[in-house]
Amino acid sequence: MKIFEEKIAPNARRVRMFLAEKSISDIEYVQLDLQKGDNVSKEFKQMNPLAKIPVMELEDGSYLSESVAICRYFEAVKPSPSLMGESPLQQANIEMWQRRCELYFMNLIGMGFQHCSGFFADRMTPVPVWGQECVKDASKFMPLLNDHLANSEYIAGDTFSIADITAFVSIDFARVIKLRIGDEYTHLLRWYKQVNSRPSARA
Amino acid sequence: MKIFEEKIAPNARRVRMFLAEKSISDIEYVQLDLQKGDNVSKEFKQMNPLAKIPVMELEDGSYLSESVAICRYFEAVKPSPSLMGESPLQQANIEMWQRRCELYFMNLIGMGFQHCSGFFADRMTPVPVWGQECVKDASKFMPLLNDHLANSEYIAGDTFSIADITAFVSIDFARVIKLRIGDEYTHLLRWYKQVNSRPSARA
Repeated sequence: MKIFEEKIAPNARRVRMFLAEKSISDIEYVQLDLQKGDNVSKEFKQMNPLAKIPVMELEDGSYLSESVAICRYFEAVKPSPSLMGESPLQQANIEMWQRRCELYFMNLIGMGFQHCSGFFADRMTPVPVWGQECVKDASKFMPLLNDHLANSEYIAGDTFSIADITAFVSIDFARVIKLRIGDEYTHLLRWYKQVNSRPSARA
Repeated sequence: MKIFEEKIAPNARRVRMFLAEKSISDIEYVQLDLQKGDNVSKEFKQMNPLAKIPVMELEDGSYLSESVAICRYFEAVKPSPSLMGESPLQQANIEMWQRRCELYFMNLIGMGFQHCSGFFADRMTPVPVWGQECVKDASKFMPLLNDHLANSEYIAGDTFSIADITAFVSIDFARVIKLRIGDEYTHLLRWYKQVNSRPSARA
């Protein structure tokens, strides 16, 4: 199997970290240059009409995109260790926190970066005032996460999950909008250090 | 079990439609008025600190939010009929299309509406020029979906799934930004008519 990605992109890192946690290593990675527009080429859009990375090419030649969908595939083919939950409540709780970390943090950081920096100005209309709103809202997620981690070892309970991967990758990515974990967020710092010490953090 | 929602909200409708497809009817629905701010009250934020609906109260008194997480819970407790897929590839394909319909369509319609109308101006900063970008981008998803449905009975293959629910609810919701399925999108119209005839479309 082959994954088309750009190593520094946070969605690509989510998938690599997920696969490292599952000890899945028989994947060929193909690097693209997003700023050069490798992902908006006609060829790439045949793999993913939405022009987003990562995209996985399966053995039958079909393509799968959306990082969480790629993770879902591997969760189903190799359920252990579980990163998306086992009991109904655990599955739902992980899904809830994964989505919270993505929708109200990761995606806001991404839009904040793109709209403030004009990084993809050749293919979108940056709206800096909107970018600033995103940065402001993203920064509000840190205290929420910190409060939550006061009573929870990991983001979605007492086991490591895809929700931790999304939150961790987002926090590292947040440096592009100059957002760092403040010293006052002691629980968030404790959790960050813990996740950062996992071998998958280097994937 | 109890679900706190506002009947007209698209995320609330997603859950009701999902439950109707699963013939789950023993749920008490509690109606909130979002424009009045029922969801930003201190009491509500104890159920969901992100202040979003729907929220489900479980029998043990705990709360679950994020519509797809609520659906995931019911998919696990009542797997048949499956709406999130059975084989690994089917699960991944449904996850991919569900996310595409949500990220590049439903969420854009929502932001287009909020930023152009100022509906929630008391609790957010509307950026009309960003709203207009969202409307423009959301409208590009219709031809993509139409092309895809030329060769696919449902959004994620030959069975009805949560991806169809997200796309269907989004299309109805799109009237708030005056976006309708154009007559030229014959495959999308065929699919819409088919989904609209299911009893769950009235849930």
